[in-house]
Amino acid sequence: MEFYMPTQIYHEAEAVRKHGEEMAHTGKKALIVTGHSSSKKNGALKDVTDSLDKYHTAYIIYDKITENPTIESVMDAAEIGRREGTDFVIGIGGGSPLDAAKAIALMIQNRDSASSVLYQNMALRALPVVTVPTTCGTGSEVTPFAILTRDDLQTKQSISHRIYPVIALVDGKYLKTAPESVLMNTAIDALGHMLESYFNSKATDYSRMLAQYALEVWGMATDILFGMEAQEGDYDRLMFASTLAGMAITHTGTSIPHGLSYYLTYHKGIPHGKAVGYFLPGYLDSMPESLEPQVIMALRAAGFGSLEQFEGFIKEMLGTIPVTDQEAKEMVEEIANNDRKKKAVPFEITKEQIDKIVQQAR
Amino acid sequence: MEFYMPTQIYHEAEAVRKHGEEMAHTGKKALIVTGHSSSKKNGALKDVTDSLDKYHTAYIIYDKITENPTIESVMDAAEIGRREGTDFVIGIGGGSPLDAAKAIALMIQNRDSASSVLYQNMALRALPVVTVPTTCGTGSEVTPFAILTRDDLQTKQSISHRIYPVIALVDGKYLKTAPESVLMNTAIDALGHMLESYFNSKATDYSRMLAQYALEVWGMATDILFGMEAQEGDYDRLMFASTLAGMAITHTGTSIPHGLSYYLTYHKGIPHGKAVGYFLPGYLDSMPESLEPQVIMALRAAGFGSLEQFEGFIKEMLGTIPVTDQEAKEMVEEIANNDRKKKAVPFEITKEQIDKIVQQAR
Repeated sequence: MEFYMPTQIYHEAEAVRKHGEEMAHTGKKALIVTGHSSSKKNGALKDVTDSLDKYHTAYIIYDKITENPTIESVMDAAEIGRREGTDFVIGIGGGSPLDAAKAIALMIQNRDSASSVLYQNMALRALPVVTVPTTCGTGSEVTPFAILTRDDLQTKQSISHRIYPVIALVDGKYLKTAPESVLMNTAIDALGHMLESYFNSKATDYSRMLAQYALEVWGMATDILFGMEAQEGDYDRLMFASTLAGMAITHTGTSIPHGLSYYLTYHKGIPHGKAVGYFLPGYLDSMPESLEPQVIMALRAAGFGSLEQFEGFIKEMLGTIPVTDQEAKEMVEEIANNDRKKKAVPFEITKEQIDKIVQQAR
Repeated sequence: MEFYMPTQIYHEAEAVRKHGEEMAHTGKKALIVTGHSSSKKNGALKDVTDSLDKYHTAYIIYDKITENPTIESVMDAAEIGRREGTDFVIGIGGGSPLDAAKAIALMIQNRDSASSVLYQNMALRALPVVTVPTTCGTGSEVTPFAILTRDDLQTKQSISHRIYPVIALVDGKYLKTAPESVLMNTAIDALGHMLESYFNSKATDYSRMLAQYALEVWGMATDILFGMEAQEGDYDRLMFASTLAGMAITHTGTSIPHGLSYYLTYHKGIPHGKAVGYFLPGYLDSMPESLEPQVIMALRAAGFGSLEQFEGFIKEMLGTIPVTDQEAKEMVEEIANNDRKKKAVPFEITKEQIDKIVQQAR
């Protein structure tokens, strides 16, 4: 088994300002990669630019990253970053800006390469990347993954290169202004990471430790998700669980629910975490009898009494997937032919079982 | 809170041979740092040199590291490493060779510096260090610490520089030939790391996760320690628990039992792990009532039903400390004046309490 997690993580109140000097000294000129509005609303962008100003590090801001970033936006930002002579990248936001930041850092460093190198198996370096997560689902602040939309394949896929952020600055305060739906969707994405990593053919004692602890931390913060008032520390718990889950999938990857989700996001525009969540009960239900005690243990850690209760929670929070019979068939076909995701399942999964997971979500 | 653990860890059967290429390509010429005999007996040295030969990486062997390595031996090895043009260091063995390897890597890199820089607060780099642990106590394969004997202060102390190994190659098979006493002493050292990290003012959710999981893994492997036949996986569990405990103390440091142990090792020649173990029951006993439930939980995770049972185990396995009243007084005095170790205690510890811990071990 393997453990590799080289990102320097600081998780605390005012993490950006407290470690602003280290962040600012990552390079001489930063390309800040973020979305259009949320990092302005939650204060993360100001925390970053104030710290860069304080330590006299130049920067430019690229705030045009949308949900499910495209290769075109990565190339656009990289072109600007090159032209402006930036030598490190700071990603601020949810999974989309953080993933985009890694791909952009790669394309700035490899200035004469075409976008096709993103998906080629070759050793390429990237500029250093600093991450400031403002949602609680992606784990991208610590993972080496960068998932982009591939119009050529009509799906989403991580680039071939593993780019670990050098510093992750994690602070629960950025969640306070997040819309309820974003909180819910991203928290469920993180839950998907925990469950898909725990029940994974590549799981080791290292990854299980991370996933298990993440489930327990997540389970202590679910009041917010049920519409109750946030308790002291809840936002930080959701952030912490998300980071731990990111560390877990770094070592195992994800599995069937993530694989199925890409279809819903690409073709139906359904937010990533929500698209993952639909399939989690069915995935757990597909486990062989020998794994059932572990399924119950994992769900209890996360605060659910039984698989039925968990399924009820998902149905109540997310509803059902809006697909026709034909579309459902296509989804099943796509994953039944995806050897990489199928190999992540800790047992031989059949096409019939994948079909059942999809039907259970309808 | 912070998490930083950049070492690439491979823990598996034949880890050295399986990752021999990555190890060999760490540099062009290796200085292998080890003790006189154990790494020959357990096969670790041959695993390393076979892999270096296979990938055509030159090496020289420095096998004169003794228990509780001195600054003189570090300088001696560094001189040879410099003269021979080595550009990376491979430490093989228990804590002594691994810690020495880090200090040697620092002194080879800083070729014109005197040994005094080891204990100076300044930013210095070191050659890359690869570690191959052959005991189950130190955690040095992943920690940034390098504890050397300081004759000037009549104690042991970690150097001022944090040197994280680049690769740790962990394989339970090296424990099979270890003498029972080495197994016991080092396993108890690891247990000390878990308990002193868990009950520590610097403990965070990250470090507690590591210490707690380590206690559970350790608790599953204690048959060997009670003289029973090793079960499949027991050696790897002891190794894994030791590595996890190393990751935990990397984030918290150790506390009173380690602080007290240095006196016994320096003045009485008592092996490190044993010297730590004597004080563990007393340290747990000194915890305030509010921490008692956690003390019980931690001991249960490690396989002990109560503090009394744990104290019985330690007394039976280690006996009592061979010190006079005067020496006991000196030990208490030394730690009562050691602010760094005292600050690691998760409550205000008094000199009377330290005295009680020492008396309890007699």
